[in-house]
Parts: sequence; C-alpha cells; structure tokens
Amino acid sequence: MAGGHGTRFWPRSRRHIPKQLLPIGGQRSLLQETVRRLHPLFSADRVLVVTNEAHAAAVRRQLPQLRRQQVLAEPQGRNTLACLALAAEWIKARESEATMVVLPADHVISDPRGFRRSLRDGCELAEGKPALVTFGIRPTRPDPGYGYIEVGDPIHDAAGGAAWVRSFREKPAAALAKRYLKSGRYLWNSGMFVWRTSVFDTALEQHAPLVRATLRGVFGSSATKLAGRLRRAYRQLPSIAVDVAVMEPAASRRAGGPRVAVIAADLGWNDVGSWVAMPELWGCDQDGNATAGKVVPIESGNCIVYTPERLVALVGVKDLIVVDSDDALLICARDRAQDVRRVTDELKRRGWVRYL
Amino acid sequence: MAGGHGTRFWPRSRRHIPKQLLPIGGQRSLLQETVRRLHPLFSADRVLVVTNEAHAAAVRRQLPQLRRQQVLAEPQGRNTLACLALAAEWIKARESEATMVVLPADHVISDPRGFRRSLRDGCELAEGKPALVTFGIRPTRPDPGYGYIEVGDPIHDAAGGAAWVRSFREKPAAALAKRYLKSGRYLWNSGMFVWRTSVFDTALEQHAPLVRATLRGVFGSSATKLAGRLRRAYRQLPSIAVDVAVMEPAASRRAGGPRVAVIAADLGWNDVGSWVAMPELWGCDQDGNATAGKVVPIESGNCIVYTPERLVALVGVKDLIVVDSDDALLICARDRAQDVRRVTDELKRRGWVRYL
Repeated sequence: MAGGHGTRFWPRSRRHIPKQLLPIGGQRSLLQETVRRLHPLFSADRVLVVTNEAHAAAVRRQLPQLRRQQVLAEPQGRNTLACLALAAEWIKARESEATMVVLPADHVISDPRGFRRSLRDGCELAEGKPALVTFGIRPTRPDPGYGYIEVGDPIHDAAGGAAWVRSFREKPAAALAKRYLKSGRYLWNSGMFVWRTSVFDTALEQHAPLVRATLRGVFGSSATKLAGRLRRAYRQLPSIAVDVAVMEPAASRRAGGPRVAVIAADLGWNDVGSWVAMPELWGCDQDGNATAGKVVPIESGNCIVYTPERLVALVGVKDLIVVDSDDALLICARDRAQDVRRVTDELKRRGWVRYL
Repeated sequence: MAGGHGTRFWPRSRRHIPKQLLPIGGQRSLLQETVRRLHPLFSADRVLVVTNEAHAAAVRRQLPQLRRQQVLAEPQGRNTLACLALAAEWIKARESEATMVVLPADHVISDPRGFRRSLRDGCELAEGKPALVTFGIRPTRPDPGYGYIEVGDPIHDAAGGAAWVRSFREKPAAALAKRYLKSGRYLWNSGMFVWRTSVFDTALEQHAPLVRATLRGVFGSSATKLAGRLRRAYRQLPSIAVDVAVMEPAASRRAGGPRVAVIAADLGWNDVGSWVAMPELWGCDQDGNATAGKVVPIESGNCIVYTPERLVALVGVKDLIVVDSDDALLICARDRAQDVRRVTDELKRRGWVRYL
C-alpha cells in the first residue's frame, strides 16, 4: 500500500513525492526499503504495489525490478478497504488461491530479520486456519496516536505467540492509553496483515459485500479498458479503512465467518507518523538533538533537524523541528508536528501551489 | 569605512562578503546605500572607500562609478584610528586642505534628507571652527550596546543645535544607560565624523603621534610600491579606535588643541548591529514577526526571518531569528543574536571553512 500523501512530512513530502517515496530513514525510500526487506522471503515478482495515478511513475522509477502491471494506480484514494479489495482481485485474476501479505509502504522496520520471522509465522497461521492475521506491536509508551488491538485467547497450535483478537480499539484518550499499556493485554495495530485470498473474500462478502461486488472481475476483461473500469468502480466505492469495515466486525465473537488473529511482533517498528518519530530512527546526541545532515548545535537541545543539503546552525533554541528542502524550510515547535498540515492548507489558500 | 567583517550576520555575511556588502536593508548593499545617499551633497569622485584586501574587488564591483584609486585596501584591519589616519594621508596627497567626512559603510539611514542636512551643518561647523565634529543620535531606549556622548555647552553661533562634547562614555551598564536616557544630556555615538584634514592632523600629532608618523607620506612616492609601504607601516600600527585614541582625550577640557563638537542628528539611524535590528528596518506584522522574503507564520510570533530565496514556514514558534542562505541556515533564539559568532568559531574548530 503506497497510496498516501503524507502532508505531515512537508516540506520533504510534496504532491509529487509523498512520504513513502522519501529516503526518510536512510539512503533508500521507505517504499524501496519495504520491498527490499521481503528478500529472501518473497521474490520481487510476487510484489504488487498499489499507489495512485499521480505517483505511479515515481513508484515505477524507484522499483525498476517490478514489471509494469505490478504497480497498480488507483484512480482516486479510497482508504484501505478499496485498496485491499482491489489488490485481492488482482491476485485472484492470476491465482485462484494465494496467501496475501499486506504491508504499508511508509513504515520503518529496524529489525528486518525479526520482521521476516513474524511474517513467516503469520503466513503459516493464515495458511493453517481461516483467519485474518494482524501483526501487533508491543507498546513501549502509552501513545494515544495508535489504534490498539486487545489480545484474547492464545492459539495454542500456532507459532510466534499467536492469539485471537478480542477487539480493535480506535486511538484512545491519553488516560486510556496508559491503562492499555499497564494491562499488558493490548498491542499497537501495525496495519500489516496476512490472509488467504479466499478467506479475505469470505470476510468481504460478509462485511463489505457492495465493495466486493463493485470490484469483482475488474481485471477479468481486456487490460486496455482497465483504467476506465477502475474509474467507474472507484466513483462508487466508499472511503473506509479495512480495520473499521472488516477487521473490527470480524473480531467480534458474534460475527461468525473468518476470525481475526494477532501475532505479537518485535521488529523495531516505527510508523513514522511525523517528524517526531525521527529521534527513534536516528538516535540523539547528549543534548537530545536528533539530526540528519550537517548540523552545528550551540547550547540547543531536543531539536529534530533534517537537512540533506545545507548546513544548519542552532543557537540557544530547544524543542524545534527543522526540515530543509530545495525551495522551502519548516521550523515547527516539537509538540506541534501534527499542525504541519496547516502550512499546506495556508499554501493552498495563498495559491502558492509550487510549494505543495 | 568599509573594513568590517560582521560575523554577527552569519550566514549572510561571510569571509568574502561582509555585512556592508549585503543588501540587508533593501535592494542595494549597505555600502552602495552609503555612497548613494551622499548625492547631491557630494559627487562620487569625492568618495574614498577604505576596505581590506579580501573585499577590495567586491567593493569595486559594487561601486563601478569609483575609479580604482578611490578604493583603498588596508593590508590588515587595525581599527578606525589607522583607517582614518590613512584616509587623511590619501586626501592630503591630493589636496593640502579639505573637509573630511567619515562614514561607516554598514549603517542604515532611513531619512537621507535629514542625514544630508546634518552633514551640511557638520561641514559648516568644521569649516568655521578648529573642531572634530561628531554626530550624536537622540537615544530612543536605554540601549547598553552603544557608546554615549555627553553633551556640554551649546555652540551658539553654529547651525543644527551643535554643542561641545563634555565626554565620551563607553557602552554603559543597563542601569547607567537608563540614567543617561532620563537625563536627556546623552546622545548615541554614531561613529560619523567631520573635520578639516589640518585639524585632524593636529589632533593626531597631539594624541597619536606615532600613528601619524608611521603613515606620513605613505602616498608620496611611486604608486607601484604603495602596497609594500602600506604592509610595512601597518605591521607597526596599533589596533585602536579613533574614539578612544583621539576623540576621548580631545574632549577633555584639559587637553588643549582641537575640541570635539557634536551635532544632534535625527536621521532614522540604525547601526544594524545584529539581526535584532531588522524589525526597525522591515516593520512587523500584528504578531511581531519581522520578515524579508516568503514567510508563512502559523501561530508564531516575534520572529525575525530573512530568506531571500526559499519559503520559510513557522509553526508554533516564537522569539526566533531565522536567516537562510545558499548553503547554510541559522536558527537562533532572539536574545542570543550576539552568540552567532560562536557558530563561526565552531565552524573554524571543525575546519568547515567553506561556511565561514
């Protein structure tokens, strides 16, 4: 899934280059890293990237090892349910039954071996049981910015400490997040999944029959008219997350149909939700400054500085986020990272589209 | 006088482009504005610019209307006494007696008419009396960053409210600066002067005879060997300000010789000592942000932003100085502007000379 826009990473992320196409964590883009860390578990010809029309060309440039049809452009963003129902159709058009691994293209995973181990466990579980398998991250802090998974009964015959999911919890208030952390029964929802296409299809039939019907057979006829068929289908699709539309109802004991399992994964996971995530990726100096690029801090602390080109000197400042780019610079209070989108809103209002 | 280096304006000011060569106040550099505002009082062929060897070429490029010999390069910086003694020699080599106006090239003057009026008054006074004439700026705040001139008896037959100077006071402590302001008897020392060359020569003979002797006749012989003669002379010159070496002792009643007069000048003067001076030049928005360039402030206040090229977005920050340049960016707490030189110190220490 590489369809996001990531305005929270302005001025590095732009209309033409969203977060997942940026080398935020290192040398390669988050998307390139996502494909790369599948090796040797999955070969490149087993990868499908779903992105949007604006970014498909850039995605293809970043992943020259993929054939053209392995990069699929949605005509418009319709959240993860549409994206995954479409991806399942794409796979079904090629193989009647397959195991489908779902990965966001904009996460950082610092332990790729642990990641592949968890993925292998997840595939085994999904292939052995009619389950929608999620990956839960053991929380290290009471972060109210994540969705939480409530862990239920263990699945005794599965590897990797798998369990059934009791419930999904939306981003909780701070106090509730603390209780979740303390209880030890909650995991962060990583947004990564594994399921057999037939099991997902059953779940779609049960919980999102219209979406399933709208996309059914979209890859069946001639490839030349695919774009038109997709455009017509997408106009009718609701914009809804797969977690809300399928996973939450499926987790309910009363639902019947495929159940939801979770594998607690330790993989140095970071969803890189904003610049505030950077200290975890880059480390800090003794004054708490996390920097990427040439930075000269003078009596400055707890700053996050990303400057691939220019030198940045800080004098007597603290708790700042500084992000440089070719034509625009962001200076943001560290506790205001979520307000970076207000800059892009203001740029739109002023008509300064070249900076968007 | 265009010999300064201005490290306080890093990253705009650099080794190769000091403050006076920068267009800090507007479109033209401070030096260009300094020459320009003399018109129509003095024509360009009456201007001598004293700078240093590193900047002479840039000075000539900025002032193509000057002939080569009108830009004089000191072999090393030796403060204002050496600079003015040298300039006086240069003038004497051309005219046996002249009125010499001394102007720093790095000040901003927003009322050029008032400036020329004061200058005319000063010239009249200097031509009528054997006086070293200074220009005092009426203080608008108890600024401890300036030298002060204590005003003595008025000179009744002079224009422009001229008075004799009772004493010069070095940068005072904050409490003393407040008393100076309250008393109404003190003016800021602008560092601008007028005197007849013969009067200045007499004062030099009295207060700085060795400097006078060292530079005497340096322009007399062949121009081809001037550089060598200057280099030898400058090695022996002390580094001392003309205020300390000549003006202060001359202001003392016991001194005899030329006395020191002051003209209280209202000319929108700003010595542009650091980035903190900018709000006065640029004005502020309703949140106290003083900006030059494309700036998008979101809930940010009291910031000073200079960005000729790039867009700068501020989110939830206050009291910052932000200065952008091609290859380096400064972010400095507003009350730490004087510590910008610590950046250049650190750059030297790291050997990152390209940023100096």
